[in-house]
Amino acid sequence: MKNDNCIFCKLANGDIPTRTLYEDQDYRVIMDASPATRGHALVIPKDHYENLYEIPEDVAAGAVRVAKRVALVMKDKLGTAGLNLVQNNGEAAGQTVMHFHMHIIPRYVDDKAMLLWKHLDLSDAELDAIKDTING
Amino acid sequence: MKNDNCIFCKLANGDIPTRTLYEDQDYRVIMDASPATRGHALVIPKDHYENLYEIPEDVAAGAVRVAKRVALVMKDKLGTAGLNLVQNNGEAAGQTVMHFHMHIIPRYVDDKAMLLWKHLDLSDAELDAIKDTING
Repeated sequence: MKNDNCIFCKLANGDIPTRTLYEDQDYRVIMDASPATRGHALVIPKDHYENLYEIPEDVAAGAVRVAKRVALVMKDKLGTAGLNLVQNNGEAAGQTVMHFHMHIIPRYVDDKAMLLWKHLDLSDAELDAIKDTING
Repeated sequence: MKNDNCIFCKLANGDIPTRTLYEDQDYRVIMDASPATRGHALVIPKDHYENLYEIPEDVAAGAVRVAKRVALVMKDKLGTAGLNLVQNNGEAAGQTVMHFHMHIIPRYVDDKAMLLWKHLDLSDAELDAIKDTING
């Protein structure tokens, strides 16, 4: 199902021209117009789901299948040293377009692309308490 | 197949005690001992594959299915505002343990967890050239 007000619905379904790297019945992979690195791309399902919470498991899982295929091509064609898959959900997590998508970010030695997190200093007891909250 | 020298093989298969959030026949989800945020967890396949390039599509896809299930529990139990899935491949991409794994990083409003990238300033012609290299 498409959302008429969603830019990614339009991009994924070809209603707006894109730099397409891959397309099948359910997904389109396009180049990010504002890339972190050379080759930065987005796997976008053609149907509209806001995020990981909403998307059916099969559709989320399929996005990774597609990402793997594109990653192998990038490794071959771009000579990448590595790659990050990043999938953001919610404004608090940096999601800017509310249509599920997965970033494929090719990496090169010393590319200085930032993808960092700081580590919290949690005690074993604090970690245990979080685990119990999740499992409880 | 397991790798006798791999710490994540041991963790995923229960040979070393972990804080387990989820387990099935093929995967274990454990809490990251050095978390970016409260609840930071790792989806680890029980079989040993170094990275996205090596792992079979089905196994990579299944990791996202598991991540979605855990994400929904975290949303409910931890009151998360969002969540990042991050899957790193290669030292250049920040992979530190060479056994495929997917980070589940719960996010909270203003948690200041860093997950950022700078944007390259590439022209349309440069973007086109990269596309042609990948598609060529």
